Amino acid sequence: MMEPYVKQKNKNGIGYIEFFHPKHNSLPAHLLSELSRTIINAGEDDSVKVMVLQSGGDRTFCAGASFEELVDIENEESGKEFFSGFANVINAMRKCPKFIVGRVQGKAIGGGVGLASAADYCMATKYADIKLSELNLGLGPFVVGPAVQRKIGLSAMSQIAMDPNSFYSADWALQKGLYTKVFDSVSELDDAVTVFAETLCTYNPKAMVEMKTMFWRGTEDWDMLLTQRAKISGRLVLSEFTKEKLRDYK
Amino acid sequence: MMEPYVKQKNKNGIGYIEFFHPKHNSLPAHLLSELSRTIINAGEDDSVKVMVLQSGGDRTFCAGASFEELVDIENEESGKEFFSGFANVINAMRKCPKFIVGRVQGKAIGGGVGLASAADYCMATKYADIKLSELNLGLGPFVVGPAVQRKIGLSAMSQIAMDPNSFYSADWALQKGLYTKVFDSVSELDDAVTVFAETLCTYNPKAMVEMKTMFWRGTEDWDMLLTQRAKISGRLVLSEFTKEKLRDYK
Amino acid sequence: MMEPYVKQKNKNGIGYIEFFHPKHNSLPAHLLSELSRTIINAGEDDSVKVMVLQSGGDRTFCAGASFEELVDIENEESGKEFFSGFANVINAMRKCPKFIVGRVQGKAIGGGVGLASAADYCMATKYADIKLSELNLGLGPFVVGPAVQRKIGLSAMSQIAMDPNSFYSADWALQKGLYTKVFDSVSELDDAVTVFAETLCTYNPKAMVEMKTMFWRGTEDWDMLLTQRAKISGRLVLSEFTKEKLRDYK
Repeated sequence: MMEPYVKQKNKNGIGYIEFFHPKHNSLPAHLLSELSRTIINAGEDDSVKVMVLQSGGDRTFCAGASFEELVDIENEESGKEFFSGFANVINAMRKCPKFIVGRVQGKAIGGGVGLASAADYCMATKYADIKLSELNLGLGPFVVGPAVQRKIGLSAMSQIAMDPNSFYSADWALQKGLYTKVFDSVSELDDAVTVFAETLCTYNPKAMVEMKTMFWRGTEDWDMLLTQRAKISGRLVLSEFTKEKLRDYK
Repeated sequence: MMEPYVKQKNKNGIGYIEFFHPKHNSLPAHLLSELSRTIINAGEDDSVKVMVLQSGGDRTFCAGASFEELVDIENEESGKEFFSGFANVINAMRKCPKFIVGRVQGKAIGGGVGLASAADYCMATKYADIKLSELNLGLGPFVVGPAVQRKIGLSAMSQIAMDPNSFYSADWALQKGLYTKVFDSVSELDDAVTVFAETLCTYNPKAMVEMKTMFWRGTEDWDMLLTQRAKISGRLVLSEFTKEKLRDYK
Repeated sequence: MMEPYVKQKNKNGIGYIEFFHPKHNSLPAHLLSELSRTIINAGEDDSVKVMVLQSGGDRTFCAGASFEELVDIENEESGKEFFSGFANVINAMRKCPKFIVGRVQGKAIGGGVGLASAADYCMATKYADIKLSELNLGLGPFVVGPAVQRKIGLSAMSQIAMDPNSFYSADWALQKGLYTKVFDSVSELDDAVTVFAETLCTYNPKAMVEMKTMFWRGTEDWDMLLTQRAKISGRLVLSEFTKEKLRDYK
């Protein structure tokens, strides 16, 4: 079985940042912090003009947080720390002065929907259904909620958050604004992502910095907000309800 | 002819709250305040885990405010009081710590669209067209505006508010996010509402309280805002324009 | 070739405000300031109950800012001044106490999308595709961004802003809420605009003033915001990148 990783490959001014975990690209804390760090560094690297966020494998884009680590959380502090993982990645994407293009080859679940939402422009395949499954575990999409709502609106975000066992189709996500385009195959997606990112590289970098700021206007309090949200999840993960659910999954 | 009522029936942890008025479920002040009270009480009742808001009869879900009472308003104070009726129901739904599922079997007009919008998750039949008819009477959807805009966005809200004689289809309301699902018949709607609400009852109540707070973030000023809006309507209802219109309806 | 103009014709209580420029209705500074002035005056004219914003010719609705003037900008101050042109029109539309109905007969580009967005209700033909082309010139839709986002949401606004060489169809703009109706021909559009505006004239003017205020709630800082945005564009237009692009177009 392949080892988990976060890696970056630069080509033609584009920084392709890829994460991978053998369990459906579910992300444990150490991968999330590596991902944040990689995004922050690429943001500061002058040779990188545009970034692409993608994951390894040709199935699930990202299954959210790692269950195995959820089970081991024993107090509010470590709960908060764990859930800050996605908060940090989202905040790194938000504050990155470069456009980030999302490439979603397959299903996105929980935190995975958050990553897709935090991309500035996100393309997907028709297999890229989405689900906010957190409530199913006695939790909620607290950390990713603001990013998801910002992209698809309050109605759509709350609808899927209250329906944690249903996948919503890639077409639905397209209609709601999460995806900008949906392709029939991964190879078509890859071609489109490359063309789009390479085209972005030809534009005025100063204009893109200002546009990024404009797009994220009104989210200046997210460092604090997402930390508060991580606290909520960290508290709930200790509830009897969630403990029991997690035992079922073990 | 049946008497108007607000009643509550609890089953399997779900509080079904139902209002009825023989005139197309148009709501006079005393029904609105009973409805607010019932929602507040159900919110505090530990045996109720999830709430369903529905109306009696198999035609109109709610035709908005009662015309008969509108005619009798003679000063700004009683105008404000009258229009505070819907404000109070919406605020009760907003502050209720439990999820409220809307069940919309037929047309929703004016304040009725506000009630559907204030539900956290709202299902409907294909007969559940919507109309914001207030401007037709020389008024506007001031009190329900914030709730409607929160659900369907500024564009859709302003579009229907400026077009007070047109019904917008249930499918349009689905596309704009007011409804989450639209069914062919009332019985299918009822089945879906029951299954959905009963499923919600199996989730972590603490997580749902936090999610409800998250969904309504940014509406903390609505006690004041909706009261200001009720004042605007209360002033306009005394205008010559509206007085005349109401005479026509008499 | 016809001369550029801004003119106003009043009929049945409706103020039809029309702008025209022989180069695809691209707007130089003096036309933009005439347009602002005309809108402000019509807003104060008691004989005008409702306004229609339209352009001359049967092709492009508005191609945005005039290239010729862009080329001549030589310092930040005149850059800011130039880009304040659209800011002033949008702010005039926003603060106008009357409803403004947009009539978009053909393509809207850059600032043209801003004008369509700032209308309170906007109808179009199926030829009225939209494009935010600013990034192509090393700029961005900074001034019109808030108006466009208010109407079609963050996702759709950022999508087209990052894709400056693509037209998005009138149907797409309809779905996103920019247009309320899309017609097959200009004559059908004209009929619908007239009927809609004349119907508005029959409503309570006081109610419409209050509704206009409600629709634009939360934009009270746009006098300042759009000026800041004009400064950003004014600075970018002096960048080497943009200077070079503009030379290509010369």
